[in-house]
Amino acid sequence: MKIKIWFFGKKSEISDFEKEMLRRIGFRAEVNIFPISQSGISNPLAAKRAEADVFLNKIPDHDFLVVLDERGHQLDSVGFSRELKRWIVDRGEIHFVIGGAHGLDQKIISRANYLLSFGGMVWTRNLFRKMVCEQIYRALEIDGGSNFHKE
Amino acid sequence: MKIKIWFFGKKSEISDFEKEMLRRIGFRAEVNIFPISQSGISNPLAAKRAEADVFLNKIPDHDFLVVLDERGHQLDSVGFSRELKRWIVDRGEIHFVIGGAHGLDQKIISRANYLLSFGGMVWTRNLFRKMVCEQIYRALEIDGGSNFHKE
Repeated sequence: MKIKIWFFGKKSEISDFEKEMLRRIGFRAEVNIFPISQSGISNPLAAKRAEADVFLNKIPDHDFLVVLDERGHQLDSVGFSRELKRWIVDRGEIHFVIGGAHGLDQKIISRANYLLSFGGMVWTRNLFRKMVCEQIYRALEIDGGSNFHKE
Repeated sequence: MKIKIWFFGKKSEISDFEKEMLRRIGFRAEVNIFPISQSGISNPLAAKRAEADVFLNKIPDHDFLVVLDERGHQLDSVGFSRELKRWIVDRGEIHFVIGGAHGLDQKIISRANYLLSFGGMVWTRNLFRKMVCEQIYRALEIDGGSNFHKE
């Protein structure tokens, strides 16, 4: 079971908290975080488009792509655990992608198999990665029947 | 303008990330984080009730209490900024309280001036404090007209 978390930024932004979460998740699934280099194009729309192309080239057609977008489906942690389990059983490899400061290119939204929302608030990507790691960890713990998650 | 963030736990749980956020917020408002000691009572319901009493004794009647609860109002970051500004103008001192693993006692829910939700997912309190700090920082930056927040 492989899960990949993608973000638009630099590897150096990945914190010790995230590395520790990935290590803990590792008992249940292979989860990794990958940066997508920013294009350096100064026009924000053109930059987003170029970065979207780079990203989409890395995602095989049969893989399941979850786009984190505030307009997406809102799930509670148990609902997310159930969906994640279903995606894993159906597809094998799951990708999560986090938008940058200017959002995600429409091409990525169109490729999404699922739009997932963590509520209507906007977060910095450095905090948002931690939130994604924690929810994946929690989802797998719920699925595994541990007592980490309390209702 | 004073904002206090309360959580059920130990002072040592407050991370460097939070301290740095509080320092940055400090240019616009005095924001501090306060732990409420866990009661040590083994029965979870009795413990929650005892801790609620300790907490509520610290909150003057005329202060504004925001309870973070997944059943509360969901706002986007701009909406939260607008509400926060309104509370500050009306009241002066604002308190945010974060539940522990077993939730918050009904007494605290009943005392709330506002129930605020960050979506339906459950978070560890250590990550949730970071989320609260970031949204308060963002709300004050939006209100101050800086370019930190991008739509």
